[in-house]
Amino acid sequence: MFYTIDILGTIAFAISGVLVAISKKMDLFGVLIIAFVTAVGGGTLRDLLIGNTPVSWMKDITFTYVILGSAVFAILFKSKINYLRTSLFLFDTIGLYTLVGIEKGINADLHPIICIALGTITASFGGVIRDILCNEIPVIFRKEIYATACILGGVTYFLLSELPIKDDFVFIIAGVVVIIIRLLAVKFKIALPTIYSNTKEVN
Amino acid sequence: MFYTIDILGTIAFAISGVLVAISKKMDLFGVLIIAFVTAVGGGTLRDLLIGNTPVSWMKDITFTYVILGSAVFAILFKSKINYLRTSLFLFDTIGLYTLVGIEKGINADLHPIICIALGTITASFGGVIRDILCNEIPVIFRKEIYATACILGGVTYFLLSELPIKDDFVFIIAGVVVIIIRLLAVKFKIALPTIYSNTKEVN
Amino acid sequence: MFYTIDILGTIAFAISGVLVAISKKMDLFGVLIIAFVTAVGGGTLRDLLIGNTPVSWMKDITFTYVILGSAVFAILFKSKINYLRTSLFLFDTIGLYTLVGIEKGINADLHPIICIALGTITASFGGVIRDILCNEIPVIFRKEIYATACILGGVTYFLLSELPIKDDFVFIIAGVVVIIIRLLAVKFKIALPTIYSNTKEVN
Repeated sequence: MFYTIDILGTIAFAISGVLVAISKKMDLFGVLIIAFVTAVGGGTLRDLLIGNTPVSWMKDITFTYVILGSAVFAILFKSKINYLRTSLFLFDTIGLYTLVGIEKGINADLHPIICIALGTITASFGGVIRDILCNEIPVIFRKEIYATACILGGVTYFLLSELPIKDDFVFIIAGVVVIIIRLLAVKFKIALPTIYSNTKEVN
Repeated sequence: MFYTIDILGTIAFAISGVLVAISKKMDLFGVLIIAFVTAVGGGTLRDLLIGNTPVSWMKDITFTYVILGSAVFAILFKSKINYLRTSLFLFDTIGLYTLVGIEKGINADLHPIICIALGTITASFGGVIRDILCNEIPVIFRKEIYATACILGGVTYFLLSELPIKDDFVFIIAGVVVIIIRLLAVKFKIALPTIYSNTKEVN
Repeated sequence: MFYTIDILGTIAFAISGVLVAISKKMDLFGVLIIAFVTAVGGGTLRDLLIGNTPVSWMKDITFTYVILGSAVFAILFKSKINYLRTSLFLFDTIGLYTLVGIEKGINADLHPIICIALGTITASFGGVIRDILCNEIPVIFRKEIYATACILGGVTYFLLSELPIKDDFVFIIAGVVVIIIRLLAVKFKIALPTIYSNTKEVN
């Protein structure tokens, strides 16, 4: 199950990397690298922080093939994907990455709060590094509820773990929480307040 | 003693992260993340480079609480802090981080020069990554004497270690050197020359 | 032989870092740090990803001396170097870094494709992090054939390894491939297509 989520998230992240890189007029190599970094960035930072080296994608060549395949697909059908983007459920699976990160943190015997941080890093750092490489202030710091959804999903996971519920259900419920918060936030344009919300948006 | 410095430095760095993030109009999550990254960034890079994983802040939840507490405090009292900023001695303790890094380098049997580099990384990388995430050229590369103070403190540490002086004194003197150089530099606006000092400042 | 390449590449990268940092009006410390990071960045990321810690430059002080020496040299003779830049063969040796990275990947028992990725990271990440620290979109993502040369050199290496050719020859031929592709690309201004090549260049 974790593996399926990993693959789905990898596809979604790779495609999102391609779309941002193309909008920055990068060359073919740049587009592929941004796709790759966006897809593996979160998991790589997580692995480095807990000392799980060589990092995951280096030990399983499948991820490389999946990323290259997704990137080529996204380059060929870029206009269609941009159009479908808001309706593609695929992009909402990436929040589930959080749970993969939490699992690794638990296996490394870390504090629940640290596990949630690891989960959020796994799910969001790929996008952060994508934006840094593209010379943007990471979008996640400015207007997305995405990371908050990851954190709340993680909290749900640990709260439910205390109850006498089967592990699989805990996992599924936490995953559903992540996805629902994300979808609600997108639908109703909910965002965290900026600290100075009365000033105009910087570019 | 190292632990006290670590906690004080963590508070100072977290607050500085909050102030920069607010000036960039980030949302609440962005502000907290920048606070966190600024506070743990230097120590994390140091731990990764020497292979001390899971990295320090993951093994001691105290740092997470200290950072969140400092960040909330800074958000609530941001205008007062900005006003007090230049007179707060707290901010000058962060140079002492250098000594924490040097200690770790010595424990890992590294060359003194590498230890000083590690110390400087510990004390300055948090600010560097804060500026990168905020899409700025790191301020430390442009007009601060801060890193130079760290390096000179480190050199002092190793020179005094050769003399028959008790370890604790060596440590205290090196720490005082870091702080005094920093204070003098701020007071007299001393800065390293830019290579082309006759051209106008870029923004 | 790997060691000689490492030293030559370190010199070339350090000098390139100095030139970019000066053009950004950094102070002396900033220039030295950018030189250092550009020179060791690729190898450091490679070492972190495969778990080879403390990272290479920390275990061999020679690199630090070489970088500081090269940086001071570049600062003193910056105008001459800028003039000679296009004709300096030295800068073309850095593609050979790829082979150093591939070797490390093979020693860590990784898949050939991952080894090529490691090689390309070794050869190109220093430049990427230099550009990020200088607040630029990495030049490698926009108009250089450099990384492609590294990848093709890596592919050559693995293809020839299958044939009954002595290891040394395989190495030399792959290295020549990297250098020739790079030189041809520079001479004939070959670049990978951007995905939207009909739009005007962004700054």
